[in-house]
Amino acid sequence: MRQGSHSPIGVFDSGVGGLTVLKALMARLPHESTVYLGDTARVPYGTKSGEVVTRYSLKNAEFLLERGIKLLVVACNTASAVALPALEAALPVPVVGVILPGARAALARTQGGGVGIIGTPGTIRSGAYQRALESADPRVRAKARACPLFVPLAEEGWTTGDVPLLVARDYLAEFTRDGVDTLVLGCTHYPLLKGVIAEVVGPQVALVDSAEATADAVAALLSERDGLAPASRGTPEHAYYVTDVPERFMEVGARFLGRPITAAEQVDLTF
Amino acid sequence: MRQGSHSPIGVFDSGVGGLTVLKALMARLPHESTVYLGDTARVPYGTKSGEVVTRYSLKNAEFLLERGIKLLVVACNTASAVALPALEAALPVPVVGVILPGARAALARTQGGGVGIIGTPGTIRSGAYQRALESADPRVRAKARACPLFVPLAEEGWTTGDVPLLVARDYLAEFTRDGVDTLVLGCTHYPLLKGVIAEVVGPQVALVDSAEATADAVAALLSERDGLAPASRGTPEHAYYVTDVPERFMEVGARFLGRPITAAEQVDLTF
Repeated sequence: MRQGSHSPIGVFDSGVGGLTVLKALMARLPHESTVYLGDTARVPYGTKSGEVVTRYSLKNAEFLLERGIKLLVVACNTASAVALPALEAALPVPVVGVILPGARAALARTQGGGVGIIGTPGTIRSGAYQRALESADPRVRAKARACPLFVPLAEEGWTTGDVPLLVARDYLAEFTRDGVDTLVLGCTHYPLLKGVIAEVVGPQVALVDSAEATADAVAALLSERDGLAPASRGTPEHAYYVTDVPERFMEVGARFLGRPITAAEQVDLTF
Repeated sequence: MRQGSHSPIGVFDSGVGGLTVLKALMARLPHESTVYLGDTARVPYGTKSGEVVTRYSLKNAEFLLERGIKLLVVACNTASAVALPALEAALPVPVVGVILPGARAALARTQGGGVGIIGTPGTIRSGAYQRALESADPRVRAKARACPLFVPLAEEGWTTGDVPLLVARDYLAEFTRDGVDTLVLGCTHYPLLKGVIAEVVGPQVALVDSAEATADAVAALLSERDGLAPASRGTPEHAYYVTDVPERFMEVGARFLGRPITAAEQVDLTF
């Protein structure tokens, strides 16, 4: 590890969604400082091509590296699904995505039934979750479905009531058949729609989101490499950067993070 | 006019929506060649800040200028609402947005009642339609409402059925009161939802979209400046550029344009 154990953990996402992963990281590793970048000027990634998402991801990583991070967490499922090999090849620090931890968490939950995966068109098209599940356990039956309207519904706060329920019914009907007993929420926005998703798939289907599993993976990796911040170091620092104006990020982000974001700096990244 | 009358008309939008404006232009001015740029790597503009949308708009315009355009049509309502002054100041060719033509078309339709405007958060927040209407006729009563879910619904093809109907009812209930007799569809995606919008506001409200009014404004401006392409020039050429991979643009775009798009070239614009 090039940077010291005192260096911050870098986290990027296309916008606010990745703050759910940051929240889990802060709870799991309370002594770590963090630097978060939300690429709000180019959000969303989920409907864009793998090529463009990879280009944006490399630029995001470069920005965070300049801030001296010791490890990069790709908190965006779409970027984790399509850009992880390019990021690992380009970066001198370890890179942790959300796909593999999420897939492992699902395998730990399923009782030999099928595992469903929902995500953005980019994530599902990539087949990354399906590959991660099947390479870990070739007997698993993975069933994936893109749910493109869930991100705008969550962003606009339409998380309860008839509209999200009807949309969820349309997307998720297939998961209530075929013996699926575990459903991966393969997008950081989807936990906000947990209520309607659970209502549609029923109590016999466990919902898995990768935020906590990813925080566990980061803790294990840092511990293994002797890279954990010492508890004696005092209060950790948390910095926030965005590529569009920060007001909406700070306002909506506080809901995702579960604590106020008192400052976020706008940066111009040339892509 | 710096370029000759044989030069193409440039048109840009954040994605496919502006093709409805291009379609009206092709019908109104069948001898004109055109160059269209869809900024699909950064779509949507409607939820981003005016600052970022202005930056993207200037880059789009620069790219089209390099292709020798004689006039620029800003086919995106959000970009027209926030970036027109910056574009006019920076460009050596005339710039036509969709707001003023749309506002004029609404004033021509209203019978002295109120005029409603629906658009993206960026368009409505800018107040551009409201200003255009009130400066043209101080007696007009303008009532504006952002409808952020309409773009993803139209993009995903959810244009009929219960979901768009429920969303439209939520957004548009206020326009069925207060004597609004004309409603401006202030986003190029919204004509795809005309059916549900009309069902909610009822037959006493006229729906106005700015595509045809914008084509008329372009025809008038070119004619006035002796810039119309001569009818004798032979078959006009139509070129398409996008900033993300072209496949989805060509497929979805054909629906918006009403004719096949046989080729679209991906370009990397550095923003």
